Amino acid sequence: MIETERKFLVRSDGFKKEAKSATRIVQGFLNTDPERTVRIRIKGDKGFITVKGKSDAGGMSRYEWEKEIPAGEAEELLLLCEKGIIEKTRYEIPNGKHFFEVDAFAGENTGLIVAEIELFSEQDEFDRPDWLGEEVTGDRRYYNSQLSRNPYSTWDGEE
Amino acid sequence: MIETERKFLVRSDGFKKEAKSATRIVQGFLNTDPERTVRIRIKGDKGFITVKGKSDAGGMSRYEWEKEIPAGEAEELLLLCEKGIIEKTRYEIPNGKHFFEVDAFAGENTGLIVAEIELFSEQDEFDRPDWLGEEVTGDRRYYNSQLSRNPYSTWDGEE
Repeated sequence: MIETERKFLVRSDGFKKEAKSATRIVQGFLNTDPERTVRIRIKGDKGFITVKGKSDAGGMSRYEWEKEIPAGEAEELLLLCEKGIIEKTRYEIPNGKHFFEVDAFAGENTGLIVAEIELFSEQDEFDRPDWLGEEVTGDRRYYNSQLSRNPYSTWDGEE
Repeated sequence: MIETERKFLVRSDGFKKEAKSATRIVQGFLNTDPERTVRIRIKGDKGFITVKGKSDAGGMSRYEWEKEIPAGEAEELLLLCEKGIIEKTRYEIPNGKHFFEVDAFAGENTGLIVAEIELFSEQDEFDRPDWLGEEVTGDRRYYNSQLSRNPYSTWDGEE
């Protein structure tokens, strides 16, 4: 299916008191080619394999295919992944008929907090909470596949 | 799981009369990196996603993970694959307590016929039928991931 998502930086901890859940995620990539990323993820006690295609020009829509797999198999597959395993905590935050997924990264990406909202179409509207910062939709530096190769802690000061 | 396989060229059509099945296979690769190939396959009316790790030094044993998926999803994922979709007919041929899988390639790999046998260990013995030719276990040119990038029809004459 095609997903429509917008991505924002987060400028305060305000999101935490609105969160209805917080889940630890560990993930790696079998392929970080933007044409066809293949991700292995352990989320809580579940495993997933996810394939994503290239984004459209605006970076909002992207083909995505995902399958749940046993967490033990995901752990085996993580051992095959490229260097740069990503660890983060995901907070789920209701927002009207939508919800935000806020990812607070750990390890080499500590300090980076990113909010994503999945929309029904590219024209879809949503409420912007106080803690929401600059939009970074389509900025490939914030793709998890890129963060695994080029983590936030290594970025230049101008960013 | 770790698989132990040996691979051979096939030097005559003799295998066809021993075959108990012949199935059309179409497959592509989301990743052809030998460290971690990711294959999408349609075999008859079934779909599969398969991840393979690097071979050991002799090329006999290799980590392999496979999941059946709906054929329609496999067709979508084939559209994302790297160039070089592989088409072949697979013949299954009993051989004592083992069996051979003989792949007769089509398209850009027409003319290539390869037999593989899966063994219980690297020391395991098996009968060698008349049609079995030279062993090519561990020769990366015969990996399907490599045949999709560098098909048989483009190989030099000395091969």
